[in-house]
Amino acid sequence: MTERVLTGITTTGTPHLGNYVGAIRPAIEASRQPGVESFFFLADYHALIKCDEPARIERSRLEIAATWIAGGLDTDRATFYRQSDIPETTELTWLLTCVCAKGLMNRAHAYKAATDANTAAGEDPDAGITMGLFSYPVLMAADILLFNAHRVPVGRDQVQHIEMARDMAQRFNHLFGQGRELFVLPRAEIDEELATLPGLDGRKMSKSYDNTVPLFEGGSKGLKEAVARIVTDSRLPGEPKEPEGAALVTIHDAFASAAQRSAFHADLRAGLGWGEAKQRLVALIEDHIAPLRARYADLMAHPERIEEVLQHGAAKARKVATPFLAELRHAVGLRPMVAVPQAAPVHTAADKPALALFKQYREADGRFFFKLVAADGTVLLQSLGLPEGREAGAWVKRLKTEAAALAEAPIDWTASGARSAAEAALVQIAQAQD
Amino acid sequence: MTERVLTGITTTGTPHLGNYVGAIRPAIEASRQPGVESFFFLADYHALIKCDEPARIERSRLEIAATWIAGGLDTDRATFYRQSDIPETTELTWLLTCVCAKGLMNRAHAYKAATDANTAAGEDPDAGITMGLFSYPVLMAADILLFNAHRVPVGRDQVQHIEMARDMAQRFNHLFGQGRELFVLPRAEIDEELATLPGLDGRKMSKSYDNTVPLFEGGSKGLKEAVARIVTDSRLPGEPKEPEGAALVTIHDAFASAAQRSAFHADLRAGLGWGEAKQRLVALIEDHIAPLRARYADLMAHPERIEEVLQHGAAKARKVATPFLAELRHAVGLRPMVAVPQAAPVHTAADKPALALFKQYREADGRFFFKLVAADGTVLLQSLGLPEGREAGAWVKRLKTEAAALAEAPIDWTASGARSAAEAALVQIAQAQD
Repeated sequence: MTERVLTGITTTGTPHLGNYVGAIRPAIEASRQPGVESFFFLADYHALIKCDEPARIERSRLEIAATWIAGGLDTDRATFYRQSDIPETTELTWLLTCVCAKGLMNRAHAYKAATDANTAAGEDPDAGITMGLFSYPVLMAADILLFNAHRVPVGRDQVQHIEMARDMAQRFNHLFGQGRELFVLPRAEIDEELATLPGLDGRKMSKSYDNTVPLFEGGSKGLKEAVARIVTDSRLPGEPKEPEGAALVTIHDAFASAAQRSAFHADLRAGLGWGEAKQRLVALIEDHIAPLRARYADLMAHPERIEEVLQHGAAKARKVATPFLAELRHAVGLRPMVAVPQAAPVHTAADKPALALFKQYREADGRFFFKLVAADGTVLLQSLGLPEGREAGAWVKRLKTEAAALAEAPIDWTASGARSAAEAALVQIAQAQD
Repeated sequence: MTERVLTGITTTGTPHLGNYVGAIRPAIEASRQPGVESFFFLADYHALIKCDEPARIERSRLEIAATWIAGGLDTDRATFYRQSDIPETTELTWLLTCVCAKGLMNRAHAYKAATDANTAAGEDPDAGITMGLFSYPVLMAADILLFNAHRVPVGRDQVQHIEMARDMAQRFNHLFGQGRELFVLPRAEIDEELATLPGLDGRKMSKSYDNTVPLFEGGSKGLKEAVARIVTDSRLPGEPKEPEGAALVTIHDAFASAAQRSAFHADLRAGLGWGEAKQRLVALIEDHIAPLRARYADLMAHPERIEEVLQHGAAKARKVATPFLAELRHAVGLRPMVAVPQAAPVHTAADKPALALFKQYREADGRFFFKLVAADGTVLLQSLGLPEGREAGAWVKRLKTEAAALAEAPIDWTASGARSAAEAALVQIAQAQD
């Protein structure tokens, strides 16, 4: 069985070399493993909690999407999308809000840290705290549960949020599952071995320490200038140097092969000067980053291509999310109003409802399609393109008698109407045949 | 200028005679006034806060929708829809969540009443309180602001929630409006004169007092039995009776003409017996209710007709909500990624993106349509039916050069894809023409 792995990417700020080595590169590598179905999303609804500068949100989404694509994410294999392109996310957020105990949110670390800081400053505990900050774990639970992700790679500080998502999932399953597990219980996956890259001053590379090496910004010149500023000890060329623990060496090793590492360490012990070592480091990083930087620049010059990739990802994601949310809506009681078969009176010709009609057709690209069109011309269902006409015909036949088949049918939900309307129309068609 | 008036209808329980006289009938009458654009919605997302019984939610939505339609609501004139058919509602809820201070929710009366009760009982203040109960005013603000309602008729207990909606609207306008008023500030409208009907025991008619007269349940027999149980004083036939303050008389007067009222009061003062008075009351209510009851029964036997009315209402509501939410998304920075015109390089034939194509056609019903289809066959935009082919042609021409015209174009958003995708495609088409 394939395992679903889901990763949210915050969209404030510009990725630096530490983000690339510590998060982006390993996530892209992990997504190539067999038996793994990866979901990566730009968490732009989350970004709104902290950022009320529209231009910054816009810019950051673009830069981050371009970075992941340039970094080699296979967007045909992985599902790469913007959170805000999946309206099912906020709808599920509300369903979970209704089963989530307020006490659970009171105990969230991020919220408690904020109230503690306020109290220490002599302020009202909730001063400056928005409902976004307070209820953010519910949105995060919706992100995860909407795709029934099995694993969520997170930092230690996020483990509590995954536990909260499990808690909401369990409560929802208990209340509405009727013995079924509607939601998979996700597990947090903490990779202890993930490299945290040191910054210019040897502390963890972080925007808040102002010690970052840029990933693409400033080009190779920017990289060279940053590496020149990496702090080293004051040993002169010719003096033996200890590679272990030196920030410059750790950064080097994050990009080097085993052979390159040994050679670099040995050369330093043999007296390689820091200046020359920095030149070698720049050359090594350039080997890895230059092709990515070119792809990145090309993408940034063509935002419409990134948009296309993300729209493609959103369509893939909604192929999972839309039918699943319809199932969840049904579970809580948000159901289309349909005639109860046994109570339905015999229709006379006069009061027979105008039934929706199926249409089958072939597009210029040779693929076969079907759609279900209401009496007033509204497209209720629009199929995906199918290679065989027989296949389209078989689906139409099945849907005419079995509305529940909708859950599996090859429907393009982004081009269809509300699922409840389609279901109601199918039930009518089935009844008219009886 | 027409004023928008918005009314939410809770969907737990079955309406009784008091609901009809105190809320449903006056609201339907008000919706007929000139210069008023009425929005009525079944608040089923709200119902989920208090009710985890799916069958009850399902049943109640049906009964309440049937009651309003049977009661004479003109669903062509008013916009009558289910909250849960408008996915923009929960998306706006999240946008407002990000600008809503948690302190505001702490002060909500309903929440404070619940914590006070817990504290008095020696429990944790938040015991048994869900995030649904706590954050419900944010959802209510989204209901109102999504349609930029001017007036919201509410009971006194709801006035605070309207003030909270104003508060969120002001904050959002300030942060993201760039001088424009994105949201209208709604005002609460309390109708002091609204009749509260007394129940069987003379207290306010309410399910919690178990003193209700049914509206449709139990038919005319049920009505007769309930009226027989109305408490009166013990004066015998022939003794003069004081009509003022008698529950039976107040219920009578809620259905009587001025002439009928005077006659009834005079007859009681002249010694009309309570038994006969009750017969007259039953006859009077029957005059009003019997035709509604027949319509109600017919609707309940054909839930699919109610579904059709609600789907029609949802399409009307989304014609407002979908483009408005697109505007709000743009305001906060959730924008499609498009090429910046001045930075766009000259396309060579090789890297020219495959443009989406407009198609125009005529349906069997004689109306003209257009749609915008992406290179992969996805329908990005689907127009509404237009009476004139020229009109369809003019819109296509305009959209090809002016993506912003999308805000006004006759688009059937329920049959179209994400607005951001269509916008991006239109910008590409416009650029290709330059």
